[in-house]
Amino acid sequence: MQPVITLTSDFGVRDSYVGCMKGVMLRICPHATLVDITHAIPPQDIVAATFVLQTFLAYFPRDTVHVVVVDPGVGTQRRPIALATPQARFVGPDNGLFGQVWQDARREGGASAARAVVLDCPDYWLPEVSATFHGRDIFSPVAAHLAGGVALEALGTPIDDVTPAPFNEPMWERSARLAGEVIYVDHFGNCITNITVQHLHRLLPKQELSLAVVGMMHAGQTRGMLTLPILRAYADAQPGEALALIGSSQRLEICIRNGNASSTLGIGPGSVVQIELRKAVEG
Amino acid sequence: MQPVITLTSDFGVRDSYVGCMKGVMLRICPHATLVDITHAIPPQDIVAATFVLQTFLAYFPRDTVHVVVVDPGVGTQRRPIALATPQARFVGPDNGLFGQVWQDARREGGASAARAVVLDCPDYWLPEVSATFHGRDIFSPVAAHLAGGVALEALGTPIDDVTPAPFNEPMWERSARLAGEVIYVDHFGNCITNITVQHLHRLLPKQELSLAVVGMMHAGQTRGMLTLPILRAYADAQPGEALALIGSSQRLEICIRNGNASSTLGIGPGSVVQIELRKAVEG
Amino acid sequence: MQPVITLTSDFGVRDSYVGCMKGVMLRICPHATLVDITHAIPPQDIVAATFVLQTFLAYFPRDTVHVVVVDPGVGTQRRPIALATPQARFVGPDNGLFGQVWQDARREGGASAARAVVLDCPDYWLPEVSATFHGRDIFSPVAAHLAGGVALEALGTPIDDVTPAPFNEPMWERSARLAGEVIYVDHFGNCITNITVQHLHRLLPKQELSLAVVGMMHAGQTRGMLTLPILRAYADAQPGEALALIGSSQRLEICIRNGNASSTLGIGPGSVVQIELRKAVEG
Repeated sequence: MQPVITLTSDFGVRDSYVGCMKGVMLRICPHATLVDITHAIPPQDIVAATFVLQTFLAYFPRDTVHVVVVDPGVGTQRRPIALATPQARFVGPDNGLFGQVWQDARREGGASAARAVVLDCPDYWLPEVSATFHGRDIFSPVAAHLAGGVALEALGTPIDDVTPAPFNEPMWERSARLAGEVIYVDHFGNCITNITVQHLHRLLPKQELSLAVVGMMHAGQTRGMLTLPILRAYADAQPGEALALIGSSQRLEICIRNGNASSTLGIGPGSVVQIELRKAVEG
Repeated sequence: MQPVITLTSDFGVRDSYVGCMKGVMLRICPHATLVDITHAIPPQDIVAATFVLQTFLAYFPRDTVHVVVVDPGVGTQRRPIALATPQARFVGPDNGLFGQVWQDARREGGASAARAVVLDCPDYWLPEVSATFHGRDIFSPVAAHLAGGVALEALGTPIDDVTPAPFNEPMWERSARLAGEVIYVDHFGNCITNITVQHLHRLLPKQELSLAVVGMMHAGQTRGMLTLPILRAYADAQPGEALALIGSSQRLEICIRNGNASSTLGIGPGSVVQIELRKAVEG
Repeated sequence: MQPVITLTSDFGVRDSYVGCMKGVMLRICPHATLVDITHAIPPQDIVAATFVLQTFLAYFPRDTVHVVVVDPGVGTQRRPIALATPQARFVGPDNGLFGQVWQDARREGGASAARAVVLDCPDYWLPEVSATFHGRDIFSPVAAHLAGGVALEALGTPIDDVTPAPFNEPMWERSARLAGEVIYVDHFGNCITNITVQHLHRLLPKQELSLAVVGMMHAGQTRGMLTLPILRAYADAQPGEALALIGSSQRLEICIRNGNASSTLGIGPGSVVQIELRKAVEG
């Protein structure tokens, strides 16, 4: 059985940072399959990294080791951690990146479903640890040891809290109006928000009502169309038309069919998206 | 024996799309070697993807599974297909991407040399298929099953036609003048055309004649030098000088030695390139 | 044991160049693990490639085969070579890329510690060798044969010189003043120089003295702050503040904490960096 390790970071692919991490991993676990997810997380953007992590987890073999290094606090007191859930294992800084997987596993499986340790056992690190590159010096060797069969508990001291995910919760502006925000813009310019399908279900109690995006703001300025229908698929809009839909990540997205919503509408991370109940247009 | 799967797409490398595909493949075929060709095909550019596919095929082990996902018709009625030729196997949408390999295999080996199926057997897909991401939900699991040993015929219903490659054929403007077009611009700005070495051989009947590029137009406007010699190698031109040559893909390319032909000459995909017989300059 | 081959080049990742190289390698050595270091070396920048090579070597398994293709002289008389040192094996053009590893190995282990051959045995190449792509036609098959167990000496004729690394040596402007230059700018804008920790030790004879960057020039024009302390860590500077430090490559770097030194200070490859003895500020 060939263990899988994935790598997600904000290191870019110009320099040898990612290469160094892979070298370290292959020295410890030569038979590992290494898979790059992306190294283009916006620098130090923990919100984006947390979102991206959620999009690919379900597709990997159980017991894959996912290394995520978006680490603005490297060199400070933030804890290096490793986690195990029924779905996978995780290694990286405890700065919110793993709050969602920790919470999801415990909600679904109870408190024993997720285990975490603070990485305080230098036996599993490189002999020398720099102040600036824990991805290479701590996280890569720990991930390779995990992939190679070392038990989570050997890597450090158990902890029973993990820093929560950095997503703001959407806010109820009035009884039937919710204000969320854009947390990620993908390659196509689709703007993914912190509003989940669960939030929408709470808003939509009656069959004859529907939902619409009624406002978008960036840095305090109104953007885009005032009312945007929430549709089921891209194909329900005309080419070039803006729409909202529930994307594959189970979150509300603002899109333009065959276009770039972020650049066309002038919205991006942090933009406010307001949704509201409307009379169903019918169909 | 470790099966090889290659991936070519227009997904970019910012998001987790490609990572998701690899996770799906590794769950089904854990011992596969996954090789990225490129994920920077210009969005929805089937012509570019078809050209790129031809450039690397010959260098891979026989029986490699090549997955190509440039899929503007995802969610419509375009067919998902898989093919087997004596050279390799292929998985992706039937939108012209595989017309050339299909035709080449049949021309060289007869009608039985290439087999194809429409992917209509959901047993080999992910349990849930989205309307927007067949790369993950259909093509990746099918490719991994193929690589793992499932027979082509198990994956769907045989078909005996495949959508032809989307290249326009060069046109004879008069008896000794051919007008082709640029189909791909590479990293260095070299502009590759739909004029092949076979076309040139048909133009050049006599020893004392040579060929030259006599016109280039983009969007109806004349570009570049009026006459450009067709040389054998970059080194036959001076640094900074424009030239035409038969590149490693056996196609006529417009280049600038140590320079960028696309930006300097203002040509790119769709530009017209006219070639004509000339008196041989001699050498 | 799974052999490892790394790839470093200036080919970019838009086209299929790197994919072709991997196909060639996997045909010859199907069980190799292929690791991309970077394909974003600035075009034809041998200095940058030489620097990058030094940053990752130490982290890979011994006997890894490192292929480096930054090859402005392809098609000319520059020699294709392969080297073996106690640390690793190397394949690429003899244009300075491997001068440093050759010299380091001999300095540490004596003349017998590094062996090199000129690749003049076509049995280990592709059957056809183009004039423009030795990365695919010579270096990839040779690397795969090396990784698969072929002895270095089988690949060609032994040589006992290798082209020296293309770094300029820093110059002594007066007894206590050294002028070096920027050789590489990383993803974060940190500017790495040709001034090593050994040069600094020679400059700093007495405890009560310290060093400072006292001048930076680009293309003859003065840049940046006149005096910049040489600190031990990023955290010794304020966010937004410029500093110099000895980076993980054991070279003097010009940085801005949480910022981009290259764009902010207007310096980059070739910029002159002068350092000088100062009275120690004390600490």
